Amino acid sequence: MVVFEITILGANGGPFEYGTQCFVLRPAKTEDPELIAVDGGTGMHQLREMLAQGWDDNEGYDELVPSFYEHDREPIEFFIDSKLNIQKGLSKSLLQSLKRNKEHFEGANTTIKTFKLFEGITDYYITHPHFDHISGLVVNSPSIYERENTKKKTIWGLPHTIDALQKHVFNDLIWPNLPAVRSKKMKLRCLSPKKVEKCTTFPWDVIPFKVHHGIGVKAGAPVYSTFYIFRDRQTNDSIIICGDVEQDQRGCDEALLEEFWLYVADNIPLVHLKGILVECSCPLSSKPEQLYGHLSPTHLINELSNLSILYNSSRGLSGLNVIVTHVKETSAKRDPRLTILEELRFLAHERNLGDLRISIALGGHTLFL
Amino acid sequence: MVVFEITILGANGGPFEYGTQCFVLRPAKTEDPELIAVDGGTGMHQLREMLAQGWDDNEGYDELVPSFYEHDREPIEFFIDSKLNIQKGLSKSLLQSLKRNKEHFEGANTTIKTFKLFEGITDYYITHPHFDHISGLVVNSPSIYERENTKKKTIWGLPHTIDALQKHVFNDLIWPNLPAVRSKKMKLRCLSPKKVEKCTTFPWDVIPFKVHHGIGVKAGAPVYSTFYIFRDRQTNDSIIICGDVEQDQRGCDEALLEEFWLYVADNIPLVHLKGILVECSCPLSSKPEQLYGHLSPTHLINELSNLSILYNSSRGLSGLNVIVTHVKETSAKRDPRLTILEELRFLAHERNLGDLRISIALGGHTLFL
Repeated sequence: MVVFEITILGANGGPFEYGTQCFVLRPAKTEDPELIAVDGGTGMHQLREMLAQGWDDNEGYDELVPSFYEHDREPIEFFIDSKLNIQKGLSKSLLQSLKRNKEHFEGANTTIKTFKLFEGITDYYITHPHFDHISGLVVNSPSIYERENTKKKTIWGLPHTIDALQKHVFNDLIWPNLPAVRSKKMKLRCLSPKKVEKCTTFPWDVIPFKVHHGIGVKAGAPVYSTFYIFRDRQTNDSIIICGDVEQDQRGCDEALLEEFWLYVADNIPLVHLKGILVECSCPLSSKPEQLYGHLSPTHLINELSNLSILYNSSRGLSGLNVIVTHVKETSAKRDPRLTILEELRFLAHERNLGDLRISIALGGHTLFL
Repeated sequence: MVVFEITILGANGGPFEYGTQCFVLRPAKTEDPELIAVDGGTGMHQLREMLAQGWDDNEGYDELVPSFYEHDREPIEFFIDSKLNIQKGLSKSLLQSLKRNKEHFEGANTTIKTFKLFEGITDYYITHPHFDHISGLVVNSPSIYERENTKKKTIWGLPHTIDALQKHVFNDLIWPNLPAVRSKKMKLRCLSPKKVEKCTTFPWDVIPFKVHHGIGVKAGAPVYSTFYIFRDRQTNDSIIICGDVEQDQRGCDEALLEEFWLYVADNIPLVHLKGILVECSCPLSSKPEQLYGHLSPTHLINELSNLSILYNSSRGLSGLNVIVTHVKETSAKRDPRLTILEELRFLAHERNLGDLRISIALGGHTLFL
């Protein structure tokens, strides 16, 4: 049964500025046009592009997706597992709910439609305050204060994220201090690590976990990011959506990823784990000093192997969808997403992870998990 | 004679996150692939789109540009003065110089070409540190440290800009502190207001002027931005490229715009002023409290009238190209760029500004001034 509808607004890991990480989510069965977002790298521009393109009834078409390496466009099959339930654009169900619930939606122009759609994002769950995970949200944020917009938004994150957003972004220097506007239409709110929080919009639990994401250039201070579990309280089905991450370092006191996988294996039966959206920024050929707080295929497969061992299943992680985000682009001959996907599939096979379904997250597409 | 080649990577004033302000400049007569940029809202993604699209020999085609209001695309003539020298994409001259100067350029894929083209931007002149004026540069910046990239970049700005970039962006919290990397491939450097600085790449003078850009939400502290004059030392031809700006407030000690226009009229004969790229974010119907440190058509025409009076020419500002950037998008029925353009032309006529040539800055296009 499909439980989660996830629209990928952006999944690129830089250095290209457009389409960086942002996923919007809603229950697959809902009739309402509300959405929540994980990260805010992309936003209204991508929503407008997707609205302009509409919804294509012909699901079987041969789609080409932007690549700009061997060819400027490549067949979508190169990037996704054949069993992944994916379509280009916004879901028909979301578009229908907008028509039903938003006055004059159908006759409006594409820009007005976009404002109405964006209004429906009630909450952002930010993984970490790096520029590429917040840039869309920040530039979109004045629209929250448009007179026509009657809805509010809450930006959630662990304290390391919310403190940095308040101090260094919404500080009247880098961006207007919108959370200080009297109407409080945009609020910043802290979550606590490992504490189950009720999602205010859907009957879901949200559980944030702190993870490592490298160290600072100047003083070597640790940089943190967040993994989120979203759990549907009715079915117990869950998905994991990850921010940038590196493996736990040997000898480091904080075994954050180890703790995370333990929590997952103890609390989410494998059959209820509908998917993991996780970064794998760098190809196998990267030297350790080139990772800058990210995962290569070796590291990601190590983590998935750890999870598989904890589940103690004879079939590995068979049936699990792993959606790879945040691949960094390089001046390579081949699309690094295709390189990394091939490496991950090879290593997953070698490590006996079963019928693990690995795909690349493609901006402008919707997944049904 | 055409002196300046200006490629508009982005000119949108939000709240859509893609294509915010960035202009790249080179002398029209150069054979080198070097460029300088004013602001960094857009970058490598737009360069890649333009490279993928190539150069169209057929200059007379009927181009449609993205609008997303009355129609998703509108004819380019709606947005530009008929005497403006403009083309879609990168200039043929720039593409030829890349082929001549960059090894293996022609046979490379679109992404490798983009890295090589981006490498050629030697200097960024930032008007102010607001998110939408720096987001492309920030996300692009790790590519400066790619092994294949042997070139350096300097980020220039008045102290209010450079201090904010160092303290709040390249601070190992919002983004890695890349200026602290030992190789110093990216440097932050302060300019002084009204002080003539030699451009290190072209035989041009660069002169920055501090201007007002509203006040902060929380404590009401003044926010500043920058106008840049670029002057070709050989011909004395000049262009003015502006950041976000508001009119000087009555009773405020700092008459920054008044000082600026005095400098222009005293130092640049009108015949040598090849163009002004300036914001006009909000339509006439905006109330003063909705401007948030920006100009409406009344204000922009007031400023241009002041300049016209200072020039004391009987023909107003005839022949001057004014290119309007940073129009804010709203949930309106009509494209606000077309509304503002119509209002500006009406007011310019009413104020006897002569044959002033007003156009909208269109992302993905190159101007020859």
